Amino acid sequence: MTLRRFEVTTLGTGAALPARGRFPTAQLVNVHEGLYLVDCGEGTQERLREQGINFLRIGRILISHLHGDHYLGLMGLISSMHLMGRTTPLHVHGPAPLKEIIDVQLRASSTWLRYPLHVHVTAPESGRVVFADERVTVTALALKHRIVCTGFVFTESPALRSLRRETLPLIPHFKRQAVKQGEDLVLPDGTRYPNIDLTLDPPPQRRYAYCSDTAYEPALAPFIQGVELLYHEATFTEQLRARATETMHSTAAQAARLALEASVGRLLLGHFSSRYKSADELLAEALPIFPNTLLSTEGATYLVDQRSIV
Amino acid sequence: MTLRRFEVTTLGTGAALPARGRFPTAQLVNVHEGLYLVDCGEGTQERLREQGINFLRIGRILISHLHGDHYLGLMGLISSMHLMGRTTPLHVHGPAPLKEIIDVQLRASSTWLRYPLHVHVTAPESGRVVFADERVTVTALALKHRIVCTGFVFTESPALRSLRRETLPLIPHFKRQAVKQGEDLVLPDGTRYPNIDLTLDPPPQRRYAYCSDTAYEPALAPFIQGVELLYHEATFTEQLRARATETMHSTAAQAARLALEASVGRLLLGHFSSRYKSADELLAEALPIFPNTLLSTEGATYLVDQRSIV
Repeated sequence: MTLRRFEVTTLGTGAALPARGRFPTAQLVNVHEGLYLVDCGEGTQERLREQGINFLRIGRILISHLHGDHYLGLMGLISSMHLMGRTTPLHVHGPAPLKEIIDVQLRASSTWLRYPLHVHVTAPESGRVVFADERVTVTALALKHRIVCTGFVFTESPALRSLRRETLPLIPHFKRQAVKQGEDLVLPDGTRYPNIDLTLDPPPQRRYAYCSDTAYEPALAPFIQGVELLYHEATFTEQLRARATETMHSTAAQAARLALEASVGRLLLGHFSSRYKSADELLAEALPIFPNTLLSTEGATYLVDQRSIV
Repeated sequence: MTLRRFEVTTLGTGAALPARGRFPTAQLVNVHEGLYLVDCGEGTQERLREQGINFLRIGRILISHLHGDHYLGLMGLISSMHLMGRTTPLHVHGPAPLKEIIDVQLRASSTWLRYPLHVHVTAPESGRVVFADERVTVTALALKHRIVCTGFVFTESPALRSLRRETLPLIPHFKRQAVKQGEDLVLPDGTRYPNIDLTLDPPPQRRYAYCSDTAYEPALAPFIQGVELLYHEATFTEQLRARATETMHSTAAQAARLALEASVGRLLLGHFSSRYKSADELLAEALPIFPNTLLSTEGATYLVDQRSIV
C-alpha cells in the first residue's frame, strides 16, 4: 500500500492581536501529498519558508472568515507565487467579499498574474461540499462568529480495497488494480469471483475538522462526529467566559465539551488570546473534560490518525 | 537647547520577493520624538514589536506606492491599533486607491475603528507638501516606477535662535523665549536692541529624503540637493542594468550617481533583490562613485546629521 499521508502543520496559532512569538492563524494540511493552506494570517509566507515548504505546491487556500488575523497574509502569498513564476492554477475559497478584496489590490498594483487565480465563495452551511479532488473532499461547517465564518471538514478519498493474501495466486497481475477498485474477477473460462471474496475493506476514511473562530456551537457535533482530529479554537479560559460569549469565541472547556459530544479522536486547541503567556492553563482546563487534548504549537505537525491517540 | 532627535530606523529592506532574514520595506522616522512610519510591508507590526516601539505613538503613515512589499502590513497595523484601544487620530498618506483598499477590508470584517482614521491622497509631484506639523514638513518626490510612486523629503521645523552668551545679562528672563523666536528686545526705558545683535542663527534645518522604488531619475536632484541623508533603492548591480531599466528600479551605481549629483551628506542603500545573499556587492559598486554610502540594515538607526558623516 502506498503511503497515504494525512497531517496538519501549525503555522500560526495566535488570536487577533499577535503576541511576541505567536503568529496569526494558518495551517498547512497535507492529504496524500496534496497541500492545502487553511487560513493565511499576516506573515504566513515567512512561516512557510521557515518550514521549508515550496509555496508552489499549494493548490488551494481556504479562508474561514475575513478577520485580519485569518487572511492578511493572502495577498503577499498570491504576489510571491506570481514572482516565483507559478503557472499552475490556484484556487482560493472564502467568504463573498474576498474576491473584491483581491481584485482591488491586484488592480492598484497593476498586477496581471501569470497563473490562473480562481476565487470561490464558500456557502456557510454545514455539510455543503466546498470542493472535492482526487485526494480529498472538503465540506463546510457553519461556525458561530461575529461575521460569516466557516470551518472545514477534510475527508480523505477512500483507499483501494486490499487483496486477501490467500487469493493472490488466483488473480492475474493485470487484473489486480481493477479488483482493488472493487470489480469482480472473471477468468477466461467464465468463472466469476465476487469482489467480496477477494478483498478486504480498506481502512476507513480519515477526517480532520477545523473550527476557528466560533462560539460554543453544539449544532456542529453531528458534522464532526468521530473525526480523527478536531482543531477547535480556545481563545479564553472559563474565567473569561463572558468575554468569550460577547466576542463569539470559545473557552478551552467549551472546546473540550464539543470534542466529547462529537466523540472525536483527538482535540487540538489553538487561537490563544495574547493575554495567556503560556497556553498551559488552557490545556489544563480542557484535559479533565477531554483527555485526548493537545495544544497547537507553531511548527508542529499532527497526524490525522486513530492510532496516534496520545 | 532641547534634544532635537532626527533619525531613521530600518524595519525592512528587502524587495518584492522576501528573502529569508530580509523583510519588505518599512522605516520609522523619528523627528523630535514624533514617529512617522514610511511604507509598511507585510510583518511591519512584528518588526515594530521587536524594536520595542509602541505602535500607538505613530501618528502618520506614508505609503510610497501600492506594490505589496510596501503596504501589505498596513491593514494588520490599523487593526492592531484598534484592538490596543487607540483613540487618537491616525493619518495615512498614499496613492488614490489606498482608501478603497482599506475601506473594503474594514467593511468585510465589520470593523468600526475606535479611532479616527484619515486617508489622504498624495499628489505625485515633486516639491508638493504632503503634510506639515509642528515638528516636520514632508514634501513629495515624483519617482519613476511602473505604477504611481512618490518619495518623501522630511524637513525638520526650524530650531529657535540661540542667545549670544555676552547678551544674556541684558535680557530679562521672561523675554528670552520671544528673543529666541526672533523678536527685538525693547527695554522699559525704550531702548531697542535688534534681534540680530542678541542672537545667533539656529543650526540649519536638517532633511531626510526617501526614494523607493524608482528608476534612475536625475530630475530628482534639485529636490534633494544637500539633504543630510538620502535613502535610495538599489535593487540591482550594473550587471543587471537592463533588468533594472525594464522593472524601473535602480542599480547601486545609479543611486550613488544621484547622491553625487545632489551633493547629499550620506547615502543609504536598500531594497536589495533577493538574488543578493549579501548586499556587500551593491555597496562595493556604490562606494567608488559616492564614498559616504551605507547599507540599510534591519534594526539599525541612522542619524540625519551632517556631523555623523562616515
